[in-house]
Amino acid sequence: MNGPGSVMRAGPVITSRTNKKVAELVRLRLPRQRARTGNFLIEGYRELDRAVAAVELSAVYYCPTLWTGRNEAALLARARECGARLVRLAEDPFHRVSHRDRPDGLLGVGRIFPTPLTGLPPAAEPFLLVVEGIEKPGNLGAMLRTAAAAGVTGVIVCDPVTDPFGPGVVRASLGHLFTVPLAIADAESALAWLRRRRIGVVAGTPAGESASWDADLSGPTALVIGSEQRGLTRRWLDAARQVRIPMAGGPDSLNAAVAAGVLLFEAARQRTRAR
Amino acid sequence: MNGPGSVMRAGPVITSRTNKKVAELVRLRLPRQRARTGNFLIEGYRELDRAVAAVELSAVYYCPTLWTGRNEAALLARARECGARLVRLAEDPFHRVSHRDRPDGLLGVGRIFPTPLTGLPPAAEPFLLVVEGIEKPGNLGAMLRTAAAAGVTGVIVCDPVTDPFGPGVVRASLGHLFTVPLAIADAESALAWLRRRRIGVVAGTPAGESASWDADLSGPTALVIGSEQRGLTRRWLDAARQVRIPMAGGPDSLNAAVAAGVLLFEAARQRTRAR
Repeated sequence: MNGPGSVMRAGPVITSRTNKKVAELVRLRLPRQRARTGNFLIEGYRELDRAVAAVELSAVYYCPTLWTGRNEAALLARARECGARLVRLAEDPFHRVSHRDRPDGLLGVGRIFPTPLTGLPPAAEPFLLVVEGIEKPGNLGAMLRTAAAAGVTGVIVCDPVTDPFGPGVVRASLGHLFTVPLAIADAESALAWLRRRRIGVVAGTPAGESASWDADLSGPTALVIGSEQRGLTRRWLDAARQVRIPMAGGPDSLNAAVAAGVLLFEAARQRTRAR
Repeated sequence: MNGPGSVMRAGPVITSRTNKKVAELVRLRLPRQRARTGNFLIEGYRELDRAVAAVELSAVYYCPTLWTGRNEAALLARARECGARLVRLAEDPFHRVSHRDRPDGLLGVGRIFPTPLTGLPPAAEPFLLVVEGIEKPGNLGAMLRTAAAAGVTGVIVCDPVTDPFGPGVVRASLGHLFTVPLAIADAESALAWLRRRRIGVVAGTPAGESASWDADLSGPTALVIGSEQRGLTRRWLDAARQVRIPMAGGPDSLNAAVAAGVLLFEAARQRTRAR
């Protein structure tokens, strides 16, 4: 009775794009609606696959004719086991709720989870990414995905300008928003937290005195990356060792997410060597 | 008579968003229109600043009330000296021709320049980025920008899926589309060209047998990165030493532009060390 077939036959179907539920889902793209309801959108197979073990899902909306042949029915069954309501949508309303040009027929609604600094797990060799004031959802998402790939022990999103629970971040993170230990904090609290744990703060900045590959990134380290337009604020620069990525093409020649990747993997290289 | 003031007083002004010229500019967003006319769009101060020395500009459209206080009048004067016609637009038509949410009041029309493999400059220590089948303009642009930053001697765009002369690529490259030696080619020609020059081909792939920091990237090297969805084709994989970026988060956990950045700067590190 719990096989994929039964999942797909069960429950309601929404066929109209003016359905009230559809309008509610569209509204969840707005930060204030997420703040009001405590819910956020998780679209896509890979994203939901990562969310199902980590996030409280209240519902999953699905449209089998848009599926791409992964194992969608089994994922739905897992979501239902975890307590998610399953609601089938026709293609037309699904296109309306989707954030994508080519939706893959899966859209979940999850509960925004708490992200205090105290929730970051203790680590024998702390290795954190701190990002300050990132503006573009695509960059913030890519940074979370890259941090997960580099094996960080946590990410601190500092004074966010774009909401980490927005659909663009979920998408660009490919669901690593849920796999990487995450805190959201203001700069003062984050700096105090790092100091108490004696974690060295290393700022990536074009004006850094030492090249990233000459700086020691092997100890307890928090790499800090600033916003796309303005870089890091004084508060972080003053509290940090400053390192630069040696560039041939001038100071504005790296995207913020690429810069984070270069520094994270230089640190990962040094940490592997040190072991 | 050639100061910024005279630049801004001279020439025609377009006030209507339905003007024929405005419609032509909008059409240049389409690849087929670029192919038909041989023209492409270069929007934004930094992008035009890099283009003016490198690209044949036929015209620059400008809207002073949208300027952000850089040195727009001087840039216009330089463009005019290089032969560009200057056309003033009112805000309304400028918003229509702009590709951006917040345009900065500068949009150039440049001639698509030839990009043969034979145009790549000879280099004592060849260091190339080869990208295959990249789909997203933002990724291709970021890769060009990152390659410039890493000091490559050339970029080969192989079997492009997205047009390198599209507005999204120009934008994400921040104009480094014009600063980095660029060739567009099919895989066979590119491989033959690299072989004739005895340039080692190194493929970045999650299945690579050696870690990027254990592989020697200091000799004459072409780093090859595949498409976002499918990675590299057999043709490239078979012709290359395969290296992987050691990842904690699974094989799909790096964005293609970030992966290119990590490998390019690992190579840059090794090449600096080797000197």
